[in-house]
Amino acid sequence: MKKVYLVGAGPGDPEFITIKGLDLIQRADIIIYDRLVSEELLEHARNATELIYVGKIPKGSWREMPSSSRKRAGRHALTQEEINRILVEKAEEGKMVVRLKGGDPFVFGRGGEEIRALKEHGVAFEVVPGVTSAIAVPALAGIPVTDRKYASSFTVVTGQEDPTKAEQKLDYGSLRGDTIVILMGIGNLKKITAQMLKTRSKNTPVAIIEEGTTEKQRVIVGSLGNIVKKAEKEKVKPPAIIVVGNVVKLREEFGRWQTGGTKSTADLGKKSRGT
Amino acid sequence: MKKVYLVGAGPGDPEFITIKGLDLIQRADIIIYDRLVSEELLEHARNATELIYVGKIPKGSWREMPSSSRKRAGRHALTQEEINRILVEKAEEGKMVVRLKGGDPFVFGRGGEEIRALKEHGVAFEVVPGVTSAIAVPALAGIPVTDRKYASSFTVVTGQEDPTKAEQKLDYGSLRGDTIVILMGIGNLKKITAQMLKTRSKNTPVAIIEEGTTEKQRVIVGSLGNIVKKAEKEKVKPPAIIVVGNVVKLREEFGRWQTGGTKSTADLGKKSRGT
Repeated sequence: MKKVYLVGAGPGDPEFITIKGLDLIQRADIIIYDRLVSEELLEHARNATELIYVGKIPKGSWREMPSSSRKRAGRHALTQEEINRILVEKAEEGKMVVRLKGGDPFVFGRGGEEIRALKEHGVAFEVVPGVTSAIAVPALAGIPVTDRKYASSFTVVTGQEDPTKAEQKLDYGSLRGDTIVILMGIGNLKKITAQMLKTRSKNTPVAIIEEGTTEKQRVIVGSLGNIVKKAEKEKVKPPAIIVVGNVVKLREEFGRWQTGGTKSTADLGKKSRGT
Repeated sequence: MKKVYLVGAGPGDPEFITIKGLDLIQRADIIIYDRLVSEELLEHARNATELIYVGKIPKGSWREMPSSSRKRAGRHALTQEEINRILVEKAEEGKMVVRLKGGDPFVFGRGGEEIRALKEHGVAFEVVPGVTSAIAVPALAGIPVTDRKYASSFTVVTGQEDPTKAEQKLDYGSLRGDTIVILMGIGNLKKITAQMLKTRSKNTPVAIIEEGTTEKQRVIVGSLGNIVKKAEKEKVKPPAIIVVGNVVKLREEFGRWQTGGTKSTADLGKKSRGT
């Protein structure tokens, strides 16, 4: 078959994968997946499907590693080059390869780098977009990223910039847009808020959403002036998303009505079998 | 049941709806849907399901109206107030209501306004995020919105700002972010590019993607300096998405390998029934 599917797994809750994404998981010979992919999705793979875990493992979080995967490429995090090599090798063996990524493959998913490697080796690929955490995690915490009253634009930015990137370094204070969504930014929260305070009021609303769309979701609301203290007090950990802007105010209005995000595996299983 | 589900239908290709979204379509008593929702998705509703079309109909495009819907609330576009009223009324009749929106309900989907109306009337709701066109349409045209080399942020903005919005008017020249994605901007293309040319080089790459993720997709590539002429020559029409930034260069590298986005209805039907 010699084809690699780069598939977005969605934001956490397994029910938010696409029809096409789930279908590919069910048909794959090999699934190569990251840390932020829901384990429940992998239960839909065939028994014969090889599962390869290539997620980056942050310091001190070995215990967070998924335990139910049937096969795994070692306990160490793989480099991007190693991941690229596995993708090419498995495709060249004629296997149907699904590269499963949290959220969407092109929202800081390094999808482009994998595509370059596949292209160099003449391996065909197909991209299957996913529901991005940048929008869905705030939404399920009661925060729309756009709103007719408060926000006619939103900016999504990484909280961990690649130091080797060609262009100038990211300055979070220079970002415009009514809503700013920062992914993977908890480790840099102090630096990010300090930069933003140079151009925005200390009263600018901020929300941090930990483990969004899952049963373990926690939401911490504050302002640019006090969010660092609040996050320390609450011992916020990744994965977490930071939202800055007036739309955070809508959580008070919308949040209490919010439901969903806590469906069981059995339920998803049933649905995917069409009952 | 007295509940309204605000569901994102995804970007055009019906295979990109979520598992949960399709399940709700299959169970709904009433589906209230917009112009950008794929007709193929509606074929998954039960025969007894009432389908109500509330999409805005742009001037001179009556012929674009979907023809296969079984019931419709008149030939005129409904105002947001009328849509809100229908949502509340149907929910209060005890019906399971699905409000189906193109893309994601909170990306310029006016989801917030509908939630306010539901809340005022004590009607419960649930938000089901969707794959947003802002990311998926460029992706399937070979343009990742982020890239480790070219873009550590992206900004999504409406091309038709609400004139009654409280804060200052949008100036497209003031937008920052490595990648700018403009939704619903074709009618204002001249104004948008003129403003952007005040802060960006005329060589800044631009792509316009018409009918993205569908069989009818067209992609026009140019620069801030020449895209208006190109769009006029090609007679670009909505729905179309504008992407500005260096990531557009990646289309040359990635685009020729792109497949997908042209699956048949029958195929989707089979999958949703679990075969």
